[in-house]
Amino acid sequence: MFRITTLLIFLPVLLFSQVPAYKNPKLDVHTRTTDLLSRMSYEEKRAQLLCLMGWEMYEKKGRSVAVSQKFKDLMKVKPIGALWAVFRADPWTQKTLETGLDPELAAEVANEIQRYAIENTRLGIPIFLAEESPHGHMAIGTTVFPTGIGQASTWNRDLVQKAWEVKAKEIRLQGAHIAYGPVLDISRDPRWSRVEESFGEDPVLTGELGAAAVRGAGGGNLQLPFSVISTLKHFAAYGSSEGGHNGNAVNIGPIDLHQNFLFPFEKAIRAGALSIMTSYNSIDGVPSTADEYLLNQVLRRDWGFKGFVVSDLFSIDGVYSAHRVVPNLSAAGKMALNAGVDMDLGGNAFDKLDGEQLDTAVYRILARKFEMGLFEHPFVDPKKAKTEVRSQRNKDVALDVARESVVLLKNEILPLGDRYKRIAVVGPNAHAIYNQLGDYTAPQDESEMVTVYEGIKNLFSETDVKYAKGVAIRDTSRKGWEDAMELARNSEIIIAVVGGSSARDFKTVYENTGAAQTSGQNLMDMENGEGFDRATLGLMGLQEEFLKALKSTGKPLVVIYIQGRPLEMNWAAEHADALLCAWYPGAYGGTALGEILKGKYNPSGRLPISVAKSVGQLPVYYNKRRPRGNDYVELDQEALYPFGYGKSYTKFEYSDLSVGTFEIKFRLKNIGSVDGYEIPQVYFSPQNTSVVQAEKQLKYFDKVFLKAGEEKWITFTVRNEDLEYVNRNLQKERYKDPVAIGVGSSSRDIVLRGSLRP
Amino acid sequence: MFRITTLLIFLPVLLFSQVPAYKNPKLDVHTRTTDLLSRMSYEEKRAQLLCLMGWEMYEKKGRSVAVSQKFKDLMKVKPIGALWAVFRADPWTQKTLETGLDPELAAEVANEIQRYAIENTRLGIPIFLAEESPHGHMAIGTTVFPTGIGQASTWNRDLVQKAWEVKAKEIRLQGAHIAYGPVLDISRDPRWSRVEESFGEDPVLTGELGAAAVRGAGGGNLQLPFSVISTLKHFAAYGSSEGGHNGNAVNIGPIDLHQNFLFPFEKAIRAGALSIMTSYNSIDGVPSTADEYLLNQVLRRDWGFKGFVVSDLFSIDGVYSAHRVVPNLSAAGKMALNAGVDMDLGGNAFDKLDGEQLDTAVYRILARKFEMGLFEHPFVDPKKAKTEVRSQRNKDVALDVARESVVLLKNEILPLGDRYKRIAVVGPNAHAIYNQLGDYTAPQDESEMVTVYEGIKNLFSETDVKYAKGVAIRDTSRKGWEDAMELARNSEIIIAVVGGSSARDFKTVYENTGAAQTSGQNLMDMENGEGFDRATLGLMGLQEEFLKALKSTGKPLVVIYIQGRPLEMNWAAEHADALLCAWYPGAYGGTALGEILKGKYNPSGRLPISVAKSVGQLPVYYNKRRPRGNDYVELDQEALYPFGYGKSYTKFEYSDLSVGTFEIKFRLKNIGSVDGYEIPQVYFSPQNTSVVQAEKQLKYFDKVFLKAGEEKWITFTVRNEDLEYVNRNLQKERYKDPVAIGVGSSSRDIVLRGSLRP
Repeated sequence: MFRITTLLIFLPVLLFSQVPAYKNPKLDVHTRTTDLLSRMSYEEKRAQLLCLMGWEMYEKKGRSVAVSQKFKDLMKVKPIGALWAVFRADPWTQKTLETGLDPELAAEVANEIQRYAIENTRLGIPIFLAEESPHGHMAIGTTVFPTGIGQASTWNRDLVQKAWEVKAKEIRLQGAHIAYGPVLDISRDPRWSRVEESFGEDPVLTGELGAAAVRGAGGGNLQLPFSVISTLKHFAAYGSSEGGHNGNAVNIGPIDLHQNFLFPFEKAIRAGALSIMTSYNSIDGVPSTADEYLLNQVLRRDWGFKGFVVSDLFSIDGVYSAHRVVPNLSAAGKMALNAGVDMDLGGNAFDKLDGEQLDTAVYRILARKFEMGLFEHPFVDPKKAKTEVRSQRNKDVALDVARESVVLLKNEILPLGDRYKRIAVVGPNAHAIYNQLGDYTAPQDESEMVTVYEGIKNLFSETDVKYAKGVAIRDTSRKGWEDAMELARNSEIIIAVVGGSSARDFKTVYENTGAAQTSGQNLMDMENGEGFDRATLGLMGLQEEFLKALKSTGKPLVVIYIQGRPLEMNWAAEHADALLCAWYPGAYGGTALGEILKGKYNPSGRLPISVAKSVGQLPVYYNKRRPRGNDYVELDQEALYPFGYGKSYTKFEYSDLSVGTFEIKFRLKNIGSVDGYEIPQVYFSPQNTSVVQAEKQLKYFDKVFLKAGEEKWITFTVRNEDLEYVNRNLQKERYKDPVAIGVGSSSRDIVLRGSLRP
Repeated sequence: MFRITTLLIFLPVLLFSQVPAYKNPKLDVHTRTTDLLSRMSYEEKRAQLLCLMGWEMYEKKGRSVAVSQKFKDLMKVKPIGALWAVFRADPWTQKTLETGLDPELAAEVANEIQRYAIENTRLGIPIFLAEESPHGHMAIGTTVFPTGIGQASTWNRDLVQKAWEVKAKEIRLQGAHIAYGPVLDISRDPRWSRVEESFGEDPVLTGELGAAAVRGAGGGNLQLPFSVISTLKHFAAYGSSEGGHNGNAVNIGPIDLHQNFLFPFEKAIRAGALSIMTSYNSIDGVPSTADEYLLNQVLRRDWGFKGFVVSDLFSIDGVYSAHRVVPNLSAAGKMALNAGVDMDLGGNAFDKLDGEQLDTAVYRILARKFEMGLFEHPFVDPKKAKTEVRSQRNKDVALDVARESVVLLKNEILPLGDRYKRIAVVGPNAHAIYNQLGDYTAPQDESEMVTVYEGIKNLFSETDVKYAKGVAIRDTSRKGWEDAMELARNSEIIIAVVGGSSARDFKTVYENTGAAQTSGQNLMDMENGEGFDRATLGLMGLQEEFLKALKSTGKPLVVIYIQGRPLEMNWAAEHADALLCAWYPGAYGGTALGEILKGKYNPSGRLPISVAKSVGQLPVYYNKRRPRGNDYVELDQEALYPFGYGKSYTKFEYSDLSVGTFEIKFRLKNIGSVDGYEIPQVYFSPQNTSVVQAEKQLKYFDKVFLKAGEEKWITFTVRNEDLEYVNRNLQKERYKDPVAIGVGSSSRDIVLRGSLRP
């Protein structure tokens, strides 16, 4: 990293200029970084690697903000390199709409932080501000998108890219630089509490959408005005923890790791991600936050990653305190740094660090600051933040994502059009805005949001739409039961909105067992979101009983699941007249659902994750290695709804498959009577590979809009990388024998078959 | 293998003797093997590697037996090296008490087979006869032991050794040579249908008992008259298949594989096992039956294994047909042979084989035949088989194992002594002999067996003991319900025997789904045993409802689970007055249970596998890698009953732990009023290892009999190998830092703590 020759070349500049070389914007990034590094003390270097909790770093009185005394004290002893979640507000940070920041104030706080860092530290290095952005920038007053699993259900690269453009811009407008996300964890266990943040179970879908997200966030070109550093989460295999316990040990093998879990990360790195976050878990006994093989060999040597690696919050600490592979915190810090971690999120563990590795890590972070122009342009315009964050255009993108994220699973009655005069909208998720926003979300100005009930009311403006909650998600109180039943009996159709919730409240944060709570205590809804792992997959509380009672009225019943994980929905699959999965559809989810029910929007979402019939079937994912297992004594092993599945109000016909070595081509026709999207999917079934493969692996997909009666040739280019798998030496190896090709509308609904000669 | 020098040394012998060298018993095994090999054609060599299905190879008319035409035809074209399961009889082989063989006839058939092979093939090579012996020799008229999981529950090395002495002797008496077993699969998933055959979830317990079994079977000294070749099953990791589907892909990593799954195999190899069977599954994409690393590197190079490797039935075929890593069967055969498989069980796949590897494999098999003296003593005495198989002594050993295998889980009422005048024995496993015998068992002379009801009746001879079945295992007919209830109401105490069953019947063999069967059809009991994987863990059919109804009579209720897997038993754990797990206790299980209920035997079994509270908690095993996971929203993550747990009618006190570098020592005292066994257990909790370890790992245990009031020093020697773990390079590495030591009566009940400086 430090070439003495470089220094020699620029020596004249250093000697004769007034300002130090690192402050000279005319010099290149490497020169400036090297110069700055050469001026830094050990303590300054060490501090540059720390990323502390940001929401403690400001004070707010009315509309006036300033850096906190805590921040000033900190900067005196440790001029830190980064802050995390300065703008975050939620029960976890204990920041509310009153005590937190809106976009304008956020920008002001960002400016104050930079001003203080620049003016009150010896070297005046600006601070990187990192913000959570799983489904929008997780701060007050920003645009709230559907969570990752909903984004993935769109199967729409362009739309995901647009969504991340919005997030990146909102983050930069407020003066932050790093976005934590996208989450590229492969989710193989619906018990896990963070499925909602992921793009589902498939490496190809996750990789494609991950790359789109990174492109949307600037694609690594940090000179773009609204480019952020995308931080891929969580490296690696975090979504496959033992028993679905969040952060628990992961027991997969290296071939599976490379072929499935690392695959999407490589895609996103190649799309320009400049940061990556390690995970809490170990893989086969090696903590990811201290995994030299993963970080220095795979990520850096094999993939050519040029950015920096950040730990998860206190995950370096966990190398000691949870995994116990070192005798103390400081040894954990050293181990992590040497394994390739550059930044310590939480900032406890990087203590006594080794010299050379320290310089390398500091270099990686500083170079990104120079690339971004932070030394020249550390400040932002709070007025612009005020007007451009959550602009109408941004909200429209969020609504688009919401529309495309809803998956129609069963349909014997939709769209409703104007057929019904009295609609009952019932259930715990029908009119509970936080239940449709997902974990991590900041407190909201609720007038900005649209619940399902509100969306239906708006869309069915000529209709008598009434709401009754009926039951809660987890609480077993029956006090709303009779009102809801009466409403149902008096309606012509019932729309029941059930499912789960990741809504934290100030009372229940950190509490994650619901044992022995009686209904009198008004048990919170939360049953999902970080740390809320489930041991069953059914609807909690009285919800299923409620659905049965609704059905017994004899009225048509539409069931909508608002949820963060694929809950078991066997009853509704059998008995509802229509069934939709809307995940957590975000701020405008109600509008999207209203449009779909009405028939104004033709649903186009597809499942990015399998829906199991029973927790006893787990794991249930479509691309398991061969062979197909025995069915169980009580149950087959099939998903209730498979990966890639989703219905439309129209029908599509596939024909004329031709498979060449360089191209796969077929005809797709909308043979129904309404316009709509189809998502044609191409699955590979390779044979005679040296390592056992899945019977089916998604390779290509597209989201295609066809007017009624319209047809199109769909073409996919076969790239070299599509013909490779990971062999026993963890090298990519090309298929030798013909690959069976299946084309269809889901992993189960294969309608065209061919063979590809590799 | 073939040293020309060896041949030269013995050249004079070869030239001047009348008989070929291989027939000369004075020559050493290597010389004889090499000589024979040099005389064999390609076809003869290839045939030597085949092991075909044996029960088709004889004909029986009355008491007269002969080899079948099929066998003669076979030997003409392929003078095969081995036959499997000649004596087997069960629904699977379609052999009954009438059409199958008893020990005397079995010995005669064995003799006929050898006679034919010797007299009617060019080289006259005797045939290896391999027999299944998971819990006794699986043939008619042999001694039936508790299945593996019950054997493991004894935690008694000496007794397991004795049991295998019996099995080996019975096998040899009938003229067979190879025992398939012990099963050393680590069972981490109770959904899996073959948990019953294994020694449970722990590598140390499994390894210790596996080694004991191998010692009992002769320890590899094939010159002993009743020594068999122990075939370890299944290599490797077969007990950790994805979703609990039998034979499905296994997704563990190599460190886990070495430290936990391979560990017991290494122990048993070192104890003298001379054969090992590959498994159907792949591990991280590599089919075990074609895993060169496992077979040639780990097993042979690292462990010095000198025996031969046999495939599982058609598992070479599966390399092609199930795993699809090769284009045809013959390629699968070649791949398996080159990976180190010597014998093709099923005999379809070894087709066009490569020369050098072929010779090596043939050598390995022939050398064992010479070692065993088969060329000199191919025949056995049918009269001895008739009198010595299932001798009283052998039956006593089986009863001993049954006694020690029963685990007392809860007790507020036992022993019953003479307190009750009217005992109701009810439930589907109370008087159903095949339900207590386990999978693979041959048809039995039922007069030889003792059901639970019979055992209780015998032991409580002064008491009015009555039986009513009540309900079936799976069938939901209520036709026996009322009779059982009436009996219960009229009794003073109820003993309910519930659980599962691996009893195959001729009608339902191969059928393994129970969907949509109505009670009218008299649904079979079988819900466990090879291929009968479960998706739920509760009692099937009406059993739990039946238990609740019994409880509602207000009578004391003792619940006994007869089962092949650890079923969920939450209700009984809470509501029964006593709860016992007897697994499949074998032919004399009824006697064992009667003695325990009466108080004639003080229960001493301990769980070799955790009992989960819910299928949603899986996997549940005690030695998971750190850290402890989050509890679930609905449920904690603890086992209902942990590994190592089991109660006694007396109480034990632990004291005075002293931990030295070479010895761990403590005092154990029987502080109760009855004599009994305790199983003191020592767990290691290593720190600062380079790879994440389990919070607890069993290292030492003993089964100690103490009279009431008696005390003893318990001493364990710390061996170098106890201080090692598997590091990232798959090498054994020694602990560097002090290891926390826990001593107690189960993995959860740790009463003494210390620290060991390694």
